[in-house]
Amino acid sequence: MGRTPPHPEVSQFDLQQVLEALVDPVRRSIVTQLDASGEDIKCGAFDMPVSKSTATHHFKVLREAGLLRQYYVGTSRMNALRRAEMDEAFPGLLDALTTHQDKRH
Amino acid sequence: MGRTPPHPEVSQFDLQQVLEALVDPVRRSIVTQLDASGEDIKCGAFDMPVSKSTATHHFKVLREAGLLRQYYVGTSRMNALRRAEMDEAFPGLLDALTTHQDKRH
Repeated sequence: MGRTPPHPEVSQFDLQQVLEALVDPVRRSIVTQLDASGEDIKCGAFDMPVSKSTATHHFKVLREAGLLRQYYVGTSRMNALRRAEMDEAFPGLLDALTTHQDKRH
Repeated sequence: MGRTPPHPEVSQFDLQQVLEALVDPVRRSIVTQLDASGEDIKCGAFDMPVSKSTATHHFKVLREAGLLRQYYVGTSRMNALRRAEMDEAFPGLLDALTTHQDKRH
């Protein structure tokens, strides 16, 4: 487990931190892509108009806010949307954001 | 109507702009106080730990994002939450944020 980065528990989720993560359009797009796919996605497979190091930063912010769970499969870092846990902490928030992303952007 | 500041139409509401307005905890508190009161509130009557000029800036950001409708009664600038219009543009977003504000903060 040494390579698994730290993740907050649901009880540690903080609305301010979650909103600061989601206010960034690239980070919101990562969440929307995961939500739309319904599957875990490796870091390199997202559609993102940023450098690899910037992308890594965005994944870290989302992970630390509790939005993503990251794990390794071989050398690939995979990303899972923590949908159920977010819905438990902040019911309706991800629904609201993922729906509008699809409709309006 | 000369003293009524400009307000965006619902069709002009932009999710990015709305999230940038709501990511600030003082601005989110203004929205939460309006939502909880169920009545319009004049600018000077909010519970806010900021200077008057900073408060004026926060009201402007919220108004320009479409979250507030401002109007004058005598010399008081009143604030109304544009709840129905926000719900039309971004269903569930204000519900999600106002509920969690009450519960967690």
